[in-house]
Amino acid sequence: MTFSLSENIKYKRRPRLKTNKMDSVKIKAIVVTVSDSRRETDDVSGVTLVGLLLEIGAEIVDKIIVSDEFEDLRNTLYSLTEREDANLILTTGGTGFAPRDNTPEATRAVIEREAQGLAEAMRFETLKNTPMAMLSRGVCGIRGETLIINLPGSPSGVRECFAVIKDVLPHAVNLISGNSNHLE
Amino acid sequence: MTFSLSENIKYKRRPRLKTNKMDSVKIKAIVVTVSDSRRETDDVSGVTLVGLLLEIGAEIVDKIIVSDEFEDLRNTLYSLTEREDANLILTTGGTGFAPRDNTPEATRAVIEREAQGLAEAMRFETLKNTPMAMLSRGVCGIRGETLIINLPGSPSGVRECFAVIKDVLPHAVNLISGNSNHLE
Amino acid sequence: MTFSLSENIKYKRRPRLKTNKMDSVKIKAIVVTVSDSRRETDDVSGVTLVGLLLEIGAEIVDKIIVSDEFEDLRNTLYSLTEREDANLILTTGGTGFAPRDNTPEATRAVIEREAQGLAEAMRFETLKNTPMAMLSRGVCGIRGETLIINLPGSPSGVRECFAVIKDVLPHAVNLISGNSNHLE
Repeated sequence: MTFSLSENIKYKRRPRLKTNKMDSVKIKAIVVTVSDSRRETDDVSGVTLVGLLLEIGAEIVDKIIVSDEFEDLRNTLYSLTEREDANLILTTGGTGFAPRDNTPEATRAVIEREAQGLAEAMRFETLKNTPMAMLSRGVCGIRGETLIINLPGSPSGVRECFAVIKDVLPHAVNLISGNSNHLE
Repeated sequence: MTFSLSENIKYKRRPRLKTNKMDSVKIKAIVVTVSDSRRETDDVSGVTLVGLLLEIGAEIVDKIIVSDEFEDLRNTLYSLTEREDANLILTTGGTGFAPRDNTPEATRAVIEREAQGLAEAMRFETLKNTPMAMLSRGVCGIRGETLIINLPGSPSGVRECFAVIKDVLPHAVNLISGNSNHLE
Repeated sequence: MTFSLSENIKYKRRPRLKTNKMDSVKIKAIVVTVSDSRRETDDVSGVTLVGLLLEIGAEIVDKIIVSDEFEDLRNTLYSLTEREDANLILTTGGTGFAPRDNTPEATRAVIEREAQGLAEAMRFETLKNTPMAMLSRGVCGIRGETLIINLPGSPSGVRECFAVIKDVLPHAVNLISGNSNHLE
């Protein structure tokens, strides 16, 4: 059977729901520095990320440092997605080619739905600054009502990548929470 | 042992097969609207997609609407790839961040070989229009002789993304059918 | 003994290691032509790749031709990553949409850590030359201390894609070997 369009049917545009709740869910973020050697006193990238999040009006729920060990990292990310006081986890570090760079694998082990577009966009935009951007293996994805985003380990990498995604973060968090309408 | 090029070997270019069959397989498409709420009478994106496919000379084999429910969607996509009268399945909807946006996961569960380049190109090109393009999680891939492509849910998103891929679709379908030579 | 942070200690910025070893690991490459029909005498793409690698100072450890058969290909790639005399495997061929294009799947079955950025960058840059670039399904990734990179089957595709990644290859191989510091 070949499908044919009926000339008679009038297609009505479904009315958009009027909503004042659009993008009303506050970003509640946890910053995770992934590093075998960083401590609170020299965690420049983690602190940079906290500053960038505060600038866009996000609430910082927690800030931690974890080692590069795969299982620790996976278990930590899993536990953080279970927390009901956070809807965004931003990691810095562990996304490169070194033997202990395991952040993408730990993230992939935790997320239920991958958000490749965020990772692609960060690599694609920062590739304009340095070809080394193509060595970033960062992964983004969703578990439950939490979005996890991998950022590079350097403060400059953090700033450049965050600049790429910051404008869509509020909408992303709202969509995940089920509080916005589908993007159509 | 270190490999070294022999100066004596003459490398002959393998002659290209003369073929009149290049890109001769007709596109036979099924349009799948993924939505909990759309009905035939207001399925603007599905109808838009039918129109775009007809414009490039494709045959529309079927047009259906399925809910966002993961298992239904996966089973539907699987059944559609079993049909011998179709070689292309285009979905619209369910690729975003909302809790019931499951189209990429259902697609991934069905495909045998992923075609990341199509999904990347659609996001990359439409990113020029809107940063929201990075929230698209669409997946493309092949099962047997059928290509599945996830498009966004909005009519404008469908139009913009289809414009990116339409020129390569005929060749893609021919390659999958085994009717064209390898791209070399 | 439980370690506890003393409030009195002054935490100094960790000094960067001075190293002359940065990017000092030599690239030792194996070229793998994936094709049901190519033989040594007409393996233009394989030979092209050898030439390109020699140009950047790489050592060519081996050059082989394998069929498109998935299991052979997967087993071959696995064995090659076990070799201690190589740290880079470059494949040419088998990345398209034809029924026997299995190189990405065989690669994915072998790698432990995906390096999507390399594959994305090659597609993104070559898309400027031809829309057919979006039909490349090439995958890149790491197993142990070996990087595997899928390149297209045509000599021109090989040249164009290699040009995109050649500047970062030395650093990539050094990072994998654990010989460079993390990118920070």
